[in-house]
Amino acid sequence: MDKDIGRALFYPKSIAVVGATNKPGRPGSWYVQNLISGGFKGRIYPINPKGGEIFGLKAYPNLKSVPEAIDYVIVSIAKELSIDVINDCAANGAKIVQFFTAGFREAGEEDGILLEEQMAARARQVGVRVLGPNCAGVACPDHNRAFGPGPFTLSSENGPVAFISHSSGLVGNVIETGSTRGIKFSKLGAFNNCCDLNELDFLDYVGTDPKTSVIGAYFEGTTNGRRLFELMRKVSKTKPLVIWKGGQTEAGAKAAASHTGSISGAVNTWEVAVKQSKALMVRNFEELLDTILAFQYVPAFKGERIAILAGVFTPGGGASVTFADECTSQGLKVPLFQQATRDKLKEMVGTAGTILKNPLDIGAMVKGNSWEVLAETLDVVSKDPNIDAIMISLWLSWFHASFDDEVMGKIFDCLADYRKSHSKPLIVVSRPVVTEDKRGTDIRTLAEAGIPTYDSVTRASRALAHVVEYNRNKR
Amino acid sequence: MDKDIGRALFYPKSIAVVGATNKPGRPGSWYVQNLISGGFKGRIYPINPKGGEIFGLKAYPNLKSVPEAIDYVIVSIAKELSIDVINDCAANGAKIVQFFTAGFREAGEEDGILLEEQMAARARQVGVRVLGPNCAGVACPDHNRAFGPGPFTLSSENGPVAFISHSSGLVGNVIETGSTRGIKFSKLGAFNNCCDLNELDFLDYVGTDPKTSVIGAYFEGTTNGRRLFELMRKVSKTKPLVIWKGGQTEAGAKAAASHTGSISGAVNTWEVAVKQSKALMVRNFEELLDTILAFQYVPAFKGERIAILAGVFTPGGGASVTFADECTSQGLKVPLFQQATRDKLKEMVGTAGTILKNPLDIGAMVKGNSWEVLAETLDVVSKDPNIDAIMISLWLSWFHASFDDEVMGKIFDCLADYRKSHSKPLIVVSRPVVTEDKRGTDIRTLAEAGIPTYDSVTRASRALAHVVEYNRNKR
Repeated sequence: MDKDIGRALFYPKSIAVVGATNKPGRPGSWYVQNLISGGFKGRIYPINPKGGEIFGLKAYPNLKSVPEAIDYVIVSIAKELSIDVINDCAANGAKIVQFFTAGFREAGEEDGILLEEQMAARARQVGVRVLGPNCAGVACPDHNRAFGPGPFTLSSENGPVAFISHSSGLVGNVIETGSTRGIKFSKLGAFNNCCDLNELDFLDYVGTDPKTSVIGAYFEGTTNGRRLFELMRKVSKTKPLVIWKGGQTEAGAKAAASHTGSISGAVNTWEVAVKQSKALMVRNFEELLDTILAFQYVPAFKGERIAILAGVFTPGGGASVTFADECTSQGLKVPLFQQATRDKLKEMVGTAGTILKNPLDIGAMVKGNSWEVLAETLDVVSKDPNIDAIMISLWLSWFHASFDDEVMGKIFDCLADYRKSHSKPLIVVSRPVVTEDKRGTDIRTLAEAGIPTYDSVTRASRALAHVVEYNRNKR
Repeated sequence: MDKDIGRALFYPKSIAVVGATNKPGRPGSWYVQNLISGGFKGRIYPINPKGGEIFGLKAYPNLKSVPEAIDYVIVSIAKELSIDVINDCAANGAKIVQFFTAGFREAGEEDGILLEEQMAARARQVGVRVLGPNCAGVACPDHNRAFGPGPFTLSSENGPVAFISHSSGLVGNVIETGSTRGIKFSKLGAFNNCCDLNELDFLDYVGTDPKTSVIGAYFEGTTNGRRLFELMRKVSKTKPLVIWKGGQTEAGAKAAASHTGSISGAVNTWEVAVKQSKALMVRNFEELLDTILAFQYVPAFKGERIAILAGVFTPGGGASVTFADECTSQGLKVPLFQQATRDKLKEMVGTAGTILKNPLDIGAMVKGNSWEVLAETLDVVSKDPNIDAIMISLWLSWFHASFDDEVMGKIFDCLADYRKSHSKPLIVVSRPVVTEDKRGTDIRTLAEAGIPTYDSVTRASRALAHVVEYNRNKR
């Protein structure tokens, strides 16, 4: 992507919102509000024929009346006005115009397809770049630029993960869900109909962005298969590229055509292309999030031999069995501890109600054990040469019923201390209970200590297997 | 299972707790507390050599001093005393003794194996039935009998689902997680080491229990493969039997031996046996819960043609594609609506920002739509003869940011009204965000209206596919 266009896309000095309004619940009000509440570092120009003030900002009647050339224009007005908007952009000297406005190619009707073509042609003619249409745009935490239209401000802390997508809604889902799990983003962007700026431009940008070291992508199709393959291969040499392909089935492909007008292509072609390019294919939203979370928190994990702490102050027998099943099913290994490790553990926690092989079940806290045994256990296990990483199962609702906040704090400190002083990765698995009101805080606490949390061992082990695969391919 | 033993197991008139104590954080105090707080309908006898009072109940120094023959004895004292306990049970006339005490066969050492054999032999001799050892026991909501030892009371409302398990911890997980999702249980029970009462006894009991119509089971092995197969086949004729097999891998099988002393058996044998018996095999905890939830809420679902409402007052384009992919990948069908349905929808919501095929995206609420369009949409879609069930995606955090509690109530009422007045099943998919504090209430509200909620379309469609498979086999 042209350097200046990339800058205007993610780091615009100014954003205009055409269709800005004070009326609640409209995209034209959400965009302005979310830019303000996100603390956007550039200037914001609401555009409304009536002028006046919109959320405390001076509104301009049209783009031409704005006193500077605008980097990035957001449009949320009737599609019939789109060519006029392009002309106004040209008059202003605007660089990029993003159409949130929908009803174009994706609607599958002649007039919308024609209008999209005419708009794109006019934009090319006057030298304005178009994002979308039918597109909610981009976010850039580094520039305090929150994501698009919606009743809440979707933003995250600045971090290493980029996510690019044919679907705008999915960008919202990824920011919202990802942020609560400790994923921190560098860049996010949707391209939807791709009448001009497209998936190749975005992948090229994040592939070379020095602030991005992990990339997630949701594709419904491609504008150029050959070029995409080459880009995936190039990017994968230095950054893990996690790809979720929408439209993998006939019904999904039909929906993709209705969503972004994309031609899905044969599933098998995608499978092969992704594999050959050494990118990583995921199957659903959860696996996408899980995998980018793993790459953010344990990027260098190369081994595959997992120590499982299945029972920590709570019953862990069943978890021992099922965690071992899942890890090995995903291609990880769960080797026996060395005898020295087992002897040490036996000394520490005894044999009744415990399992001292691997998985390890140190038992419910019923024998006068205190939480302090956890630090020692982690240390002993991590020193076993058969082990590359530790996966620990925490029954957090049980913990909260057993321990006051002070002890809970000490337990989390103990995990954080392990993370600081030991090199072998630590991954938490904690089954969610929908009534667990402290879960959000717990997960944030762990994330801040550098420890990722997964809802299930199935999901944790699949994510880790992707990291192992990527690092093995890279060697 | 002998009828009187079955009654004493799930509906005991009296329970004694050997090792009862006032000391916090011990199994011997948890058992007494949880029976009391669960509102157990029978009599509770704490047993402690020191006598006195335990949680307000008179404590007896030993079983022999209790003034009635006890139906069910729970033991949480040193394993070395287990033969003495059996003798005391015999002296009292007790029917069943459950050993929470561990350190027997599962520990894999000679003395524990021998002790378990001696204890079982002595029990046979004196006519006392043994559950476990290394076992937390059973729960029976119908009898206000909460589950075992733990720092909180694990109970659920009385309902149609039984769950039986080699793992006690898993019973706790299933009650806790299941209850928050609206699963209501008839019976729950763990058998662990199976030195006497075993998986066959439990399956036989719940298979013929008139209050149970859905059965989940977690098996690590079997005491008699032939007999288990015959039972599975018999039970599956009238009730869906959902089986999760632990020890499917070498590492898992080793852990199973350490957990309950089970011999896992060849995975392939289990696969074939489950399939031939027309029971249903699931792969992990989530699929187990999801599937029993589906059988509780949509037991008769036979069709396989799903209408997907992917965008409901929120962006739904990406969801349209990925929901269609997942449903069809799981063997469900997502057929086009009939033309008449599409015409009606077009009239209702227009074409801009919507997708009116199937999946359906009625768009964000940006065109003056109000929530009332939802009732009409559900009605129109359910009348399409191409459709057997409706799956609806709700972005609940967005809803709460957009709507006040009154409107939220009306939206839930509208779903509940649909459920009451229409026969085609309705299933909600709502992606969790760990900071969503209203999620638990929302899911409970939906469950009370007879609508199950799933975290992801992957999980919802897999669960529905199991229901379709079972009902197809049954025909």
